[in-house]
Amino acid sequence: MNTPFTHPPSAPHQEPSTTDASALHREATVIDGLVIAKWNRELFEDMQRGGLTAANCTVSVWEGFQATVDNIVASNHLMEECGDLVLPVRTTEDIRRAKQEGKTGIIFGFQNAHAFEDQIGYVEIFKQLGVGIVQMCYNTQNLVGTGCYERDGGLSDFGREIVAEMNRVGVMCDLSHVGSNTSQEVILESQKPVCYSHCLPSGLKEHPRNKSDEELKFIADHGGFVGVTMFTPFLRAGVNATVDDYVEAIEYVMNIVGEDAIGIGTDFTQGQDQQFFEWLTHDKGYARRLTSFGEIINPRGIRTIGEFGNLTEALLKRGLSEQQVRKIMGENWVRVLKDVWGA
Amino acid sequence: MNTPFTHPPSAPHQEPSTTDASALHREATVIDGLVIAKWNRELFEDMQRGGLTAANCTVSVWEGFQATVDNIVASNHLMEECGDLVLPVRTTEDIRRAKQEGKTGIIFGFQNAHAFEDQIGYVEIFKQLGVGIVQMCYNTQNLVGTGCYERDGGLSDFGREIVAEMNRVGVMCDLSHVGSNTSQEVILESQKPVCYSHCLPSGLKEHPRNKSDEELKFIADHGGFVGVTMFTPFLRAGVNATVDDYVEAIEYVMNIVGEDAIGIGTDFTQGQDQQFFEWLTHDKGYARRLTSFGEIINPRGIRTIGEFGNLTEALLKRGLSEQQVRKIMGENWVRVLKDVWGA
Repeated sequence: MNTPFTHPPSAPHQEPSTTDASALHREATVIDGLVIAKWNRELFEDMQRGGLTAANCTVSVWEGFQATVDNIVASNHLMEECGDLVLPVRTTEDIRRAKQEGKTGIIFGFQNAHAFEDQIGYVEIFKQLGVGIVQMCYNTQNLVGTGCYERDGGLSDFGREIVAEMNRVGVMCDLSHVGSNTSQEVILESQKPVCYSHCLPSGLKEHPRNKSDEELKFIADHGGFVGVTMFTPFLRAGVNATVDDYVEAIEYVMNIVGEDAIGIGTDFTQGQDQQFFEWLTHDKGYARRLTSFGEIINPRGIRTIGEFGNLTEALLKRGLSEQQVRKIMGENWVRVLKDVWGA
Repeated sequence: MNTPFTHPPSAPHQEPSTTDASALHREATVIDGLVIAKWNRELFEDMQRGGLTAANCTVSVWEGFQATVDNIVASNHLMEECGDLVLPVRTTEDIRRAKQEGKTGIIFGFQNAHAFEDQIGYVEIFKQLGVGIVQMCYNTQNLVGTGCYERDGGLSDFGREIVAEMNRVGVMCDLSHVGSNTSQEVILESQKPVCYSHCLPSGLKEHPRNKSDEELKFIADHGGFVGVTMFTPFLRAGVNATVDDYVEAIEYVMNIVGEDAIGIGTDFTQGQDQQFFEWLTHDKGYARRLTSFGEIINPRGIRTIGEFGNLTEALLKRGLSEQQVRKIMGENWVRVLKDVWGA
């Protein structure tokens, strides 16, 4: 019915990979702050191929409470079936255990607080079901605030109550697709670190989804965190981008937020079909069209999750220190998640 | 368990009622643009006592889709049981029939678009279930816009789609508890007349729920309609108000919007208990408190729906013409509802 988007691995990388890069990638804790790929065994196999220690995997975008619970049920079943490849992450200790066992830890995340519906109590319910990161809005207005693709009136009063509850139970606030006003107010409202789990700098390319230098500085100055994405329509080089263009953006962000507040958030969508993208790019999954990106093609060198090791190599080649690369590839994410989760 | 608020009829009215007033009230089409009273036979009996031809009766405030359908089911059952007193209103022809049969026509109304949830298609579903008037927001932010008790970022893009759908299927947009920015944008967006079904002028008393002269003029200049409420905390005289204070406010509004764009919207809550008011005055029915009015006491002379006739008398006494009184008491409502409903 729906032809899956094929994400063939990139053509063989031109630069010879050094032993150091491979070894470092194997040793490092590698965290992907945003994956919205098709949930199946092939995904988990590719995560293992890519050496992923853990990933924030989306289980809700436009779904309400019950449909989101259904997604979690299905994800749990799949993860049990694939227990040789993955394990569920509730604490950073689980991430450490995943590394030890050579598996990938799966963090459940929302890209929209919509699934909380109008119930503050659902925040804790979802925390108990394994949800560790929740984006406050996805592109448009919800009960909490407004996304980045319409006029943004800021954080609602109900939204302030949601932030307080997320702080209390230990769910990280994500602001990637959130509007500028709402983001700023969540950053000020939250008593725990918040993040842009997957964003790019508008300093390299102007786009409503990209964050300005001021916004990047603001979140960092308030103890927040930035995961850098590689979605080619938001990169300066567009669909011709390579992993080196991704690294350029990472370095650009690092120069603003510092080497301790930065990580990776690829936004991998591999395995998703056209129907999924239609759903994703319309408000509520069916209403007006919000965006139109055409076919999603990732930067050459990191077209699939299995090629994640090329990112470590490209960061080293760029001249970053081994220490910086370790931080960017995952150590910083683990630290900030522990700050928010409390364990 | 919950002691119902008692609404004893006012002490005997001091002014002798003229035969003309009683006769006029009996003949007139009497419409109440907002009733949120306890649904029971006693309510319908009191409506008959008060000579009500039809009333917009709230079936949803904080409820979601399914709970609202449940309310409608219960209301339908009660109305069938009380078929000697009431009939359901889908068109203004039903209102005429109610008058003819000496019954009260019941219009289902929402005080919050929340029950549409994220589904534009639910607008038509509810229209088919008999819902003729929907307030876009109740006091706070929802997916459509923002209410009058928090900062108002205006009508959302989804809200624009909801307005268009309400226009298409014939559901009137109500803005009484809606914020100023959202109200203005709904007035501009709607292709059919919209209303403040129950409001008071801030020209007589400053209050976040009251409408300024400019706001009243704006809605009237754009073909809209104003129902005047009598909620004593919003009246200049407060809890000491009488039906004459209510009439003062009606006249004040009429002088701004004209005698063709004005009607009645009492906001009667009779029969509701403390638990109901607690639910009503907290965001989502349970979250932060939004308002605190203490005991609700209606103006002397019109404490209960059964005393509705005193309003006709007080309007005449104020010096309004019989023609003006007929318009205010109901004819204007019928005309504007026909404009929106198409029948």
